[in-house]
Amino acid sequence: MGKVIVQKYGGTSVGSIDKIKRVAERIAEIRKSGNDVVVVVSAMAGQTDQLLQLAWQISDHPKQREVDLLLSSGERISCALLTIALNAVGCEAVSMTGRQIGLQTDNTHTRARIKQIDGGLCKRYLEEQKVVVVAGFQGINEHGDVTTLGRGGSDTSAVALAVALNAEQCEICTDVDGVFTADPRIVPDARKLSTISYDEMLEMSGLGAKVLQLRCVEFAKKFNMPLIVRSSYNNKPGTLISREDPKMEQPVVSGIMYDKNQAKITVKGVPDQPGIAAKLFNALASASVSVDMIIQNISEEGHTDISFTVTTEHLKDAMAEVNKVNEEIKAEKITQDAGISKISIVGAGMRSHSGIAARMFETLSRENINILMISTSEIKVSCIIDEKYTEQATRTLHEAFDMKTAPVANAEGNPQDSKIKV
Amino acid sequence: MGKVIVQKYGGTSVGSIDKIKRVAERIAEIRKSGNDVVVVVSAMAGQTDQLLQLAWQISDHPKQREVDLLLSSGERISCALLTIALNAVGCEAVSMTGRQIGLQTDNTHTRARIKQIDGGLCKRYLEEQKVVVVAGFQGINEHGDVTTLGRGGSDTSAVALAVALNAEQCEICTDVDGVFTADPRIVPDARKLSTISYDEMLEMSGLGAKVLQLRCVEFAKKFNMPLIVRSSYNNKPGTLISREDPKMEQPVVSGIMYDKNQAKITVKGVPDQPGIAAKLFNALASASVSVDMIIQNISEEGHTDISFTVTTEHLKDAMAEVNKVNEEIKAEKITQDAGISKISIVGAGMRSHSGIAARMFETLSRENINILMISTSEIKVSCIIDEKYTEQATRTLHEAFDMKTAPVANAEGNPQDSKIKV
Repeated sequence: MGKVIVQKYGGTSVGSIDKIKRVAERIAEIRKSGNDVVVVVSAMAGQTDQLLQLAWQISDHPKQREVDLLLSSGERISCALLTIALNAVGCEAVSMTGRQIGLQTDNTHTRARIKQIDGGLCKRYLEEQKVVVVAGFQGINEHGDVTTLGRGGSDTSAVALAVALNAEQCEICTDVDGVFTADPRIVPDARKLSTISYDEMLEMSGLGAKVLQLRCVEFAKKFNMPLIVRSSYNNKPGTLISREDPKMEQPVVSGIMYDKNQAKITVKGVPDQPGIAAKLFNALASASVSVDMIIQNISEEGHTDISFTVTTEHLKDAMAEVNKVNEEIKAEKITQDAGISKISIVGAGMRSHSGIAARMFETLSRENINILMISTSEIKVSCIIDEKYTEQATRTLHEAFDMKTAPVANAEGNPQDSKIKV
Repeated sequence: MGKVIVQKYGGTSVGSIDKIKRVAERIAEIRKSGNDVVVVVSAMAGQTDQLLQLAWQISDHPKQREVDLLLSSGERISCALLTIALNAVGCEAVSMTGRQIGLQTDNTHTRARIKQIDGGLCKRYLEEQKVVVVAGFQGINEHGDVTTLGRGGSDTSAVALAVALNAEQCEICTDVDGVFTADPRIVPDARKLSTISYDEMLEMSGLGAKVLQLRCVEFAKKFNMPLIVRSSYNNKPGTLISREDPKMEQPVVSGIMYDKNQAKITVKGVPDQPGIAAKLFNALASASVSVDMIIQNISEEGHTDISFTVTTEHLKDAMAEVNKVNEEIKAEKITQDAGISKISIVGAGMRSHSGIAARMFETLSRENINILMISTSEIKVSCIIDEKYTEQATRTLHEAFDMKTAPVANAEGNPQDSKIKV
């Protein structure tokens, strides 16, 4: 077998018959260059939502097992069509479903986790010089029922398959040219990153960068599979996501993310006693509400305030839980605010540079943008701000960290970041 | 386990969300009456054609393996939706794909034949008091690839499953009330048959009655599974198709069928030598053109004419083959005529009554309808006529054989057919 390349094409890239034909021609070119090619496809753009709409027209709570059978059809359709298109341009191809590539998952319907993948049959097709087209997003569980991997699950299918086939790399082909320092719609001089580390990409994916599913990056990191995010429509090199390399371009801040899909709940005047916070957050956890940031004020006269953030879609459920728990904890007041946004800077360089957070706060303060909450990790700083300042904050921070210019590695492999004074 | 009833719902019956909900309520009613219910569904009306259209927009000759993966998605969607609808009305249900019911086929993609069916998992779900909803039309072959059973294949899935589950009966629920003596759109006083034999139904299906796929009836006959054709929308009893019963209502002619989808090819002036016809029809057979009727004229001066009929969709291919063979057999002239129609009468009673064919010819002749070709079997007579007389011939024959009135079995179980003088 030659070098194996796994490419994944998203829903927009196969969103119409014309686009499917174009993608087929592109894949045929890559095949001609001598590589073994495996292509993982998502459902045609809009299809998954259409199918979900049908289910919801019937039931508010369709069983997830049935939703999985329903949704998995979308990828089977695009998979068959792309295979037909490849054969039509003279590139011998064969379709495979999640079951056929041996993608075994656990039993958690609609967001199953991959347990193992047996690429045996896929390898045999590659040996027969065929391009293998795989229906992404789906597998089967131990009962033989169809499962799906959750939104963006095709990315994870692709990486898992790349690992199973010992591929050279896994390319995520999408409608952008790569990973950018910031959203180019907001920051016109946002720059495409040529490389970025798994850890940085993990932070970015967790912070609302929609280009890659978090689990896909985790998977790639775990098995050290080089990931490339690139355009489905041009041959530009894209962004390579790989293990951190001391010689790698390493700006202090690689990217700025924002997430408007945030809401804050404040529980005011609860007794400052051990166990109150535990009661609150246990209740939220058992209702499957993910809490992001949490702040507890300094106690005054035996009472305190607790604020926390959730995504807007969880706001309603979270409020319901809080009100339930409140019969016990007896807070003075419970407030909610959906008009907030989370703005974050991410960079592996933060590990070796101090003062980055301070610089972020200073920049926002200079713009009179009030910071409501803060959270940090080793390589990121996030601030909750008023939603209306999102774009302003993004642009100002992009400018302040001089992100439009690519850092140039010097002879010792250290980036020249002299412009950033911290 | 209680009595098992297998019901199959066609594409029109699940053609919209509202219809799916209605069908779900109906099934829930039947379940409440205490029977174990297995439901086989077709794709939502139009879906299969839509998917095929997508394939054809890409390629004139899509590989049949890929077409099968594509088309099988349609039944998976309707299967998931109907299961969701059943759960929504409080009737516990579970979906199963062709693979999950263990429907093994041969390797003939797009028109696979069932090799075996293992209803084990299906039985287990029935024991758990669940309604089982099965995606019809599909199975898997020995390679684990998805196969489909050809147009109307869901009927065959249903019968095969009914046999595997030792069901009481297999109900084909459709948008008509049953099997009629003639097309009610042409013959307003066409009568719904209460019972009909497998053999009669086989002839009718072979002659263009679209209500049941030929193979479904063959299957039911082979395993003596009672088939019922009935409406999806009302509780009328429908038509029972079963083994011939001497006590059964048995009119001489049970039904009149017509098929406008016929064409005639005439090869004029070929040498009347042994082997000429063999060459011609071998060539057609190897091009997969099914020939229906064949006539060879009496030889004149060492030459003869051969006429035969094919379906209109095979006309082009057939002409191409005939022209190819003609380089060898050197006929004087080859003509084609797509403006013909086949009109047939079917009835198990023909076995014990003579003169039925003569009566048919006489009736047509009285109407000045010329008969171009004739073929007969033990229980049917078919005539090729000019297409424009189709409706007239159907109505006249319906009248002549007095089919609007149901025959009444007398004490000895013999039908009173005194009105038919032959």
